[in-house]
Order: sequence, then C-alpha cells, then structure tokens
Amino acid sequence: MTGQPTDLAALQRRLVEFAAARDWEPFHTPKNLAAALSVEASELLEIFQWLTPGQSSAVMADPGSAHRVRDEVADVLAYLLQFCAALEIDVLAALAAKIDRNEERFPRPGRPGDPPAG
Amino acid sequence: MTGQPTDLAALQRRLVEFAAARDWEPFHTPKNLAAALSVEASELLEIFQWLTPGQSSAVMADPGSAHRVRDEVADVLAYLLQFCAALEIDVLAALAAKIDRNEERFPRPGRPGDPPAG
Amino acid sequence: MTGQPTDLAALQRRLVEFAAARDWEPFHTPKNLAAALSVEASELLEIFQWLTPGQSSAVMADPGSAHRVRDEVADVLAYLLQFCAALEIDVLAALAAKIDRNEERFPRPGRPGDPPAG
Amino acid sequence: MTGQPTDLAALQRRLVEFAAARDWEPFHTPKNLAAALSVEASELLEIFQWLTPGQSSAVMADPGSAHRVRDEVADVLAYLLQFCAALEIDVLAALAAKIDRNEERFPRPGRPGDPPAG
Repeated sequence: MTGQPTDLAALQRRLVEFAAARDWEPFHTPKNLAAALSVEASELLEIFQWLTPGQSSAVMADPGSAHRVRDEVADVLAYLLQFCAALEIDVLAALAAKIDRNEERFPRPGRPGDPPAG
Repeated sequence: MTGQPTDLAALQRRLVEFAAARDWEPFHTPKNLAAALSVEASELLEIFQWLTPGQSSAVMADPGSAHRVRDEVADVLAYLLQFCAALEIDVLAALAAKIDRNEERFPRPGRPGDPPAG
Repeated sequence: MTGQPTDLAALQRRLVEFAAARDWEPFHTPKNLAAALSVEASELLEIFQWLTPGQSSAVMADPGSAHRVRDEVADVLAYLLQFCAALEIDVLAALAAKIDRNEERFPRPGRPGDPPAG
Repeated sequence: MTGQPTDLAALQRRLVEFAAARDWEPFHTPKNLAAALSVEASELLEIFQWLTPGQSSAVMADPGSAHRVRDEVADVLAYLLQFCAALEIDVLAALAAKIDRNEERFPRPGRPGDPPAG
C-alpha cells in the first residue's frame, strides 16, 4: 500500500497521470475507452456465467475467485473514470441526477399501515 | 436537485435503499447485477459504435448525445455500486490496490534528461 | 416472405449488398462491426438479465418476448456475417476447426459399460 | 480435419451432441448461453479495442491475430447456435425475416440515372 488518498477524485487523477506518463493518451479516445469498459464488464460477467444464483452469492468465499472479482471491479471503475475524465463528465453528479429521476419514475410503493398519500 | 450528499458511499446507500423499498432485492443477485452492468456498458458503447475517433471526442457538443452519455455512465456506476454492495466489496480500495499493482507492472518510462535508474 | 434462398452464404451476400447499396461500407470497419456485434449480443442478454433460469427457458411462450429474441438473434448473426465478410473469414470452417480442437481438449467421458480406452 | 460436413445445421448438431456427451446441459440454460455469447463477442471486440480503423482492417495479416480472430468468431457462432437449439429457433429463418424487414425500413436509395420510382 502506498498510503495515498483513495477518494474517487484522487483515484481518477492517478489514472489520468498514469496514462499520460506512458503516452497512452492517443489510444484513450472516448470510443476506445467505452469499448474497453464494456470488455472489462464482460470479464466480470464471465466469472458468473455458469453459476447458479446461489453460487453467485457465495463467490467471495473462495480467495481466488474473490481476488478475480475485485480485480475486474477495479478495471471497470478504472475505465469508467478515464472515460469520464476524457469527456469532462462529473460521474457522481450524473449518478445523483439519475437517482433523482428514478425516484420520480418508480415511486416508492405504499406499505400496509402507511398513511394515504396526499 | 435534492440537496442530498453526493459522495460515492452516500450514493451507494441511496441505491441500496431504493432497491430495498421496491422489493427488488431478490432480482439483485451478483450474477444478475453483473449481467446488468455489462448490458449498460454496451448501451454506452452503442452511442460510439459508428463514430470516427474524432467524432467520439466531440460527442458532448450535442446536448442530446451529452444527456444520453451521462445517463449511461450513471447506469454503469449504479450497477457497479449495487454489485459491490451485494458482495461487500470496497470498490475504492479495490481500485487503489489495482493502480498500485499496475504501477509495478508498467514502470514509468524514463524521460530524456532523467537520471539513470539505480 | 420473399422466396429468396436462406442458406448462410446467400444471407451473407444479401447483407453485404444491402450495406453497399446504402453506402454504409465506410462505417463497416472490422472494429465497428465487432463493437456492433457485442452491442447486439448484450441486447439479447438484456431480455434475460432479471429472469430465473426457469423463466429463461420459457421465454418463447410469450409472443412478444419470442419476437424480441428472434430479432436480436438475427442482429447478432447479421453483424457476425458482415464482420466475417469484411475480413474474408469462412465462419463455418472456423467453427468446424474449433469443434475439432474442443473434441481433443475435452475428451468424451467414458460411460458405465464403455469398453476401457486403448 | 475430420472430413465431417460443415453446413450450419450439421455444426449445430455436433455442438448439441458435444454438450450432451459431457453432461453440460444443466448449465446451458438460455440465460447462461446468452451471457456466454455476449462474453465471447466482447473477447472478439477486445482484439480491436485499441486499434485505429486502418489497423483493424489489417488484423488478418498477422498469423497470431488471425488465429485469435477466427477462434473468437467460432465461439460466438457456437454459443449462438446452442442458444437457438435450446429455444428451438431457426436462426437462418430469423435472419431472412429481419433482412426482409430492414429492406422495407431502409429503402434502397435512388442513384443518379435511376428511373424515377413509380
């Protein structure tokens, strides 16, 4: 461990500097980063493709599988952050706005005993 | 805007509560969430599939495309956070560890004028 | 129905002529066709993402779902054939060779009552 | 080479028998096969993700890349045929019907010198 900060913005900066230091920026078009993101998401899915729902819930019990899952999760987030950096998208604001929209689109259902709406 | 906090952990809690309030948890097995994540990543890629590299870099100039990109980015992060919540994975720690490993695997190249290593 | 032949080679020719007549060839680089193929495969997966294994086996019982599944299957094959046309790959020969390799890699297991090998 | 027939229906039968002989059928739900198909399509895309359009057109010039492309193409077709076998879908009829629909949806454009329609 490097003792570096691990908030989202700091990790995004590390990823951008990492790519710049290796002259990878010409490869990092938004189109290529979107393709790489989808490839990594599929590598995560591959771990689960033949598992039953129950087996999929127990996947972290095996250390080898747990490492592989964490590794693919990290790759997905890494390409998502690099994609958002390339297009200057604030990913947390985008998600907050989406949750706001979903709360209007899928209203919270009433529960037995809830006071009637309105 | 709801004025709610928008750090990653707060957004993850909102997503988990959102699904719980709608009784969606039985559908949210790790396997299903991994499939949904890969489907959303492909919907992001779909926006770029016929674009040239140059067009892909200009995608945010059109308000309709910009909204669509932000929406898909939010969906990818939403399913990634729900997946990590289901398996109790600390996604920021996973990414920090992965960047550490990548810095060893792909050493920063020397630059003209750099002192020779070692 | 048009009464046209429906073997694989004839369908591939129709697809290539269809794209040429609409001047779509500049978009149909192997890279773009591979992206489109993966997007269509995800659209097929989307139909199944929240289904239980049992529900997934019954998906053709609903006419709307059945149409959607057939439509996505067609899109996957369409982009696969256009990809192979662009790179002059004989897809049937590629699959035959792969099955040959898999038969060596995963030998047929013996059955009770089988004569012992060798 | 085994000298076996290599038309699409014969290859589909070989794939179904191959899986049955190894007792893989319980894993081959339509949902799992759709996931596997999308994973294989992403493995094909992975070969192209950092290439320029021009490099992507030259991918078969390198024997190693050419083998990898043919191998992934075969995997995509293999899972597509197994998926269609599981749900009793005639994939060639599905594609022929889709091309018919697309010919109505995207009419062939007129060319200079074409007689005017109608």
